[in-house]
Amino acid sequence: MPKIAYLECARCGHHVSADTPQTLCPLDAGSLYVRYDMDELRRTASRDRVAERAAASPRSLGMWRYADVLPEVEPVSLGEGWTPMLQSKRYSGLLVKEEGANPTGTFKARGLGLAVTMAKHYGLKHLAVPSAGNAASALAAYAAAAGIKAHLYMPQDVPLANHLEGVLYGADVTLVDGLISDCARIVGETIKAQREAGTPAEDIWFDISTLKEPFRVEGKKTMGYELVEQLGWEYPDAVFYPTGGGVGLIGMWKAFEEMEALGWVSGKRPKMYALQATGCAPIATAYDAGAAASEFFQNADTVAAGLRVPKPYGDSIILDIVRNSGGSVVASTDEEILASIADWATNEGLFLSPEGAAATAAYDKLIASGELKSTDRVVLFNTGAGLKYVDTIAEAIKLRRPQLLPKSLPVGGIITPV
Amino acid sequence: MPKIAYLECARCGHHVSADTPQTLCPLDAGSLYVRYDMDELRRTASRDRVAERAAASPRSLGMWRYADVLPEVEPVSLGEGWTPMLQSKRYSGLLVKEEGANPTGTFKARGLGLAVTMAKHYGLKHLAVPSAGNAASALAAYAAAAGIKAHLYMPQDVPLANHLEGVLYGADVTLVDGLISDCARIVGETIKAQREAGTPAEDIWFDISTLKEPFRVEGKKTMGYELVEQLGWEYPDAVFYPTGGGVGLIGMWKAFEEMEALGWVSGKRPKMYALQATGCAPIATAYDAGAAASEFFQNADTVAAGLRVPKPYGDSIILDIVRNSGGSVVASTDEEILASIADWATNEGLFLSPEGAAATAAYDKLIASGELKSTDRVVLFNTGAGLKYVDTIAEAIKLRRPQLLPKSLPVGGIITPV
Repeated sequence: MPKIAYLECARCGHHVSADTPQTLCPLDAGSLYVRYDMDELRRTASRDRVAERAAASPRSLGMWRYADVLPEVEPVSLGEGWTPMLQSKRYSGLLVKEEGANPTGTFKARGLGLAVTMAKHYGLKHLAVPSAGNAASALAAYAAAAGIKAHLYMPQDVPLANHLEGVLYGADVTLVDGLISDCARIVGETIKAQREAGTPAEDIWFDISTLKEPFRVEGKKTMGYELVEQLGWEYPDAVFYPTGGGVGLIGMWKAFEEMEALGWVSGKRPKMYALQATGCAPIATAYDAGAAASEFFQNADTVAAGLRVPKPYGDSIILDIVRNSGGSVVASTDEEILASIADWATNEGLFLSPEGAAATAAYDKLIASGELKSTDRVVLFNTGAGLKYVDTIAEAIKLRRPQLLPKSLPVGGIITPV
Repeated sequence: MPKIAYLECARCGHHVSADTPQTLCPLDAGSLYVRYDMDELRRTASRDRVAERAAASPRSLGMWRYADVLPEVEPVSLGEGWTPMLQSKRYSGLLVKEEGANPTGTFKARGLGLAVTMAKHYGLKHLAVPSAGNAASALAAYAAAAGIKAHLYMPQDVPLANHLEGVLYGADVTLVDGLISDCARIVGETIKAQREAGTPAEDIWFDISTLKEPFRVEGKKTMGYELVEQLGWEYPDAVFYPTGGGVGLIGMWKAFEEMEALGWVSGKRPKMYALQATGCAPIATAYDAGAAASEFFQNADTVAAGLRVPKPYGDSIILDIVRNSGGSVVASTDEEILASIADWATNEGLFLSPEGAAATAAYDKLIASGELKSTDRVVLFNTGAGLKYVDTIAEAIKLRRPQLLPKSLPVGGIITPV
């Protein structure tokens, strides 16, 4: 595992040391990327070594098979990463990257697995996060594993799973009458107040918001390494990524840069498609308008809770990547998303999250318009398990639940043919 | 992949051909096991070949890394198996096999993955199952992937996830005022009526109940191969297995027999512990009484829905294995199970299913009694993701949900400090 050379601001290129915990660039509040000594990496890391490391371990290493391109540190691991890549049964070119197999059921385990690993390394005691739900669940799980206190701020109508997970993992859970943007504001104000009140340093919360510290994007980059390795170290034609905060997409792009610098992959990078819900589509709106950044999306409301991010912190980076890659941004309605969940469950045996279904719904539209062919090699991310949304999907499709009879001796009659 | 030599009755040893679909032994209704030509297997299969096959595939093969000891057939796969084995952070000898990472979130994916694979191979069009919930979900998913119609019979108070999954996957879902035993009776009666009515052969349902066809146990045996391989081809001291139908335990025992015959593992087999809930403990009751088989457990009621099997079909096989291995059967109360869920979430970052927590609760008791030491090498199965039980656990711990305000502009106030 390599030492971190420095952290680099995505906006101005300023270098910051990784010896102490860092948040944003001190000069212009840009996001910080982890940078290694690439000459050293070229000597120490290779595709063969990834395979050898994996083969030498009797258990699955998950995303830590890429330890040679991750910070040198003792992992806090719950088995994240190296998720299945499934061949669609209907579209010969379409592969689904099943991130629901991760701990806590979503891709968030990758970024928070690494971010909590580093927080433990730095000796941090309190981690706070504003979240649409799944990042909070993942933080709570990894913080519990690391013996760190987690402080979660989520919208009040977050799926039941996220609420319950936070409580069970022993986190400090606060539900907010608002969206992730309101949660972020409250976390920021709380930390500011702690500082102003002269709170001892170790009791001040660390804001582990995505892109406001360097390691969540660094963990998520493993999706980029995985998809390329799982295609035999080749790029697909396109990547479909449900985009709330969009950091998975940013992380994959960083992975592609690194892999090219290391000579692990070559050729044309995939077109990157960012998929949103019409009920919260700041990136789609900016993309259509040709704008360089997004504007705050008013009255965000969609069944895809993870896409309810009205103003992603990395908006301009996402827009740059999509445009440079030749991809695009497509938003789908909740009706289209729910229809795609049912379609994929019935016809492929996969229970997608609403976010994943925003990607499949967009795929259908681009196939119908002729922009894509079903033989084009596409890797589509189902970012989470449908099981995280059982309550909200059951409500949305008006699942008819039985009126339970009073507990009695079983009589064995059929009560609800559904 | 080897051809099946024959199917063998677990009771009388009678041989049956696998060329056509089989249910139970025609002589004495014993369960049928898949048998291969072991001389051929010794020539064609090896531990090295398992590793080579896995290394040669850029994607994870899941349980199909053991293709050399599974029937020769085109898999219907959703990415099942090769699940994480996690080191406990508190007990140095304890490893948790995380079956929640499987498709549909439970170990049931292994057995039904193979059973549906074989059903497709045989050209079956209708599969029916009585289920406590998770087997129904898995059947529905694999049947959808295979283009086969699934008919699910579950108790009316099955967790919401199981009900929703069945409906989304396009299965024919029936909720029954009773338990899995009532569901089994109804499936049997329905098939009998179909036969008597002269229903065309291809429209008669095939009963894919566990141990009433040969391939669910054959798929579940991969858990035995995996745990031994993941320990470096060595046995642990003990295996802890939550036991409803108990077929996972039976499958692992079959795997141990095969692996010994192939020379893949040697030494003392692990003590097998079958873990139950006091609200439905037929195996524990029989074990304590020194009985050879269980009696129907009256008024079964437990938060661990998967353990609500009042009279497992394989009861005598399970009791034999537990006794021969030197293990035992331990039942825990719902209070102990819920406390163990909270304990493991807070202290290890793992959200166990209630069934998995029946195993951890029993582990705690055996550590306290001195029957086990924390350094004893134990592989404990979390048979499913806690996420499959969000509604029942939230209800059981009386999770306080916010009263949602009418939808309004976000005001950003904290409404529910929990």
